[in-house]
Amino acid sequence: MLSKSLSKYIQSLHQKKYRQEHAAFLVEGAINVLELCASDYSIELLLATESFYKENARLLDKQPVRLEMVTADDLRRVGSLVANDACLAVAKTKENRFLVADADEFVLVLDDIRDPGNLGTILRIADWYGIRKLICSQSTADVYNPKVISASKGSFTRVEWYYCDLKGYLSELPETPVYGAFLDGADVHRQSFGASGYIVMGNEANGISSEVERFVSQRITIPRYGQAESLNVGIATAVICDNLRRSVGHK
Amino acid sequence: MLSKSLSKYIQSLHQKKYRQEHAAFLVEGAINVLELCASDYSIELLLATESFYKENARLLDKQPVRLEMVTADDLRRVGSLVANDACLAVAKTKENRFLVADADEFVLVLDDIRDPGNLGTILRIADWYGIRKLICSQSTADVYNPKVISASKGSFTRVEWYYCDLKGYLSELPETPVYGAFLDGADVHRQSFGASGYIVMGNEANGISSEVERFVSQRITIPRYGQAESLNVGIATAVICDNLRRSVGHK
Repeated sequence: MLSKSLSKYIQSLHQKKYRQEHAAFLVEGAINVLELCASDYSIELLLATESFYKENARLLDKQPVRLEMVTADDLRRVGSLVANDACLAVAKTKENRFLVADADEFVLVLDDIRDPGNLGTILRIADWYGIRKLICSQSTADVYNPKVISASKGSFTRVEWYYCDLKGYLSELPETPVYGAFLDGADVHRQSFGASGYIVMGNEANGISSEVERFVSQRITIPRYGQAESLNVGIATAVICDNLRRSVGHK
Repeated sequence: MLSKSLSKYIQSLHQKKYRQEHAAFLVEGAINVLELCASDYSIELLLATESFYKENARLLDKQPVRLEMVTADDLRRVGSLVANDACLAVAKTKENRFLVADADEFVLVLDDIRDPGNLGTILRIADWYGIRKLICSQSTADVYNPKVISASKGSFTRVEWYYCDLKGYLSELPETPVYGAFLDGADVHRQSFGASGYIVMGNEANGISSEVERFVSQRITIPRYGQAESLNVGIATAVICDNLRRSVGHK
């Protein structure tokens, strides 16, 4: 049975200000928690139903954790998922560490991606396409939001991020190509990408902001063959990453 | 002010059985309703806030409709969207009409796509890539579900669908290639598509069912460069359509 104070602590982590205060975040559901246990995140607390624990004890014991046995009802009450009959972990957030593209690396830059579901999907896409670093504007959704973590399906453990003022960040980059997704750029099917660079994806409604646009050296576009007005930013990120990998492969 | 009986009628259309009984469905929000007004759907009823009506009266008058002025609160109460301060329409559903790929056409086949958000996204992607027909298994989400319509961002007006038993449908196709998305197929980056065909996308958790798999003549796969276990079915559909258009273009 979960104590009141522990329930309250876990519930507080739905909110950014308490995640920052406690330097902790929620990871929910079997896939995400098992990926967490296999990662280098430190785990503060694990709540598990008995049946989940019995089946996965070997994996869970890899890291020292405070473990509490709970019911599926407890998980739903303190967590953010409608259906979770497995487990929930509280993990420590990582430091906001400066990141830069290596000489043979492509990095995604997110300019004001507001929807947590989109951000989680982008983490999963980055992980599929072997992109290991995201540079996020301060106004981009908080990656530690439980909805982002859930939507990432474990990919949050394999991708790093750095939140910063994009204007300052981009203005100090060395001579590296900065590609930006616009509706009027060069056809991405014909784009040859160099060995490394940054790919900027913009806000769901407004696209890339004018202050970030200034730093874009190559405007790219996904060609349209029908009439839909736009593509969702997660979809656009996947199509661009796919074209990137067709062009340069992966080291 | 909306009458009780009208409110009740609109609310009933959140459920499939009442949509079928009344042969009617809901279209919500400015973009979707304006696209609806520009389409060949017949509109039974339009609820609009005064400010929306004033700005758009010219577009809305194109079709004879029963019009009711309402408040944003009314829209939220009878509709499915959390935020809608513009309009809601009730339109007549279309007959479930048999569809087949023309000689120079590609058609998407959806085998048990359960999530309405995914189905709506797939409509939007199809529309972007100039794919005009979907063949849906009976177990695929109802395209007239308000969540599908909303997620399609107006693309439901430009794509047609046919719900049927896929086994029976596919068994009677003439000699047309049937591509299927699997995790172990041929690299879609190296796939050359013919002039026409069917592209099968499978269920979110289980992929393409074994009874549909029998009809797949070419297994295709999106190559993975990192470690994510899978891609969301909407994302995968977009990437495959993009590769298709790179290969064959569009007539």
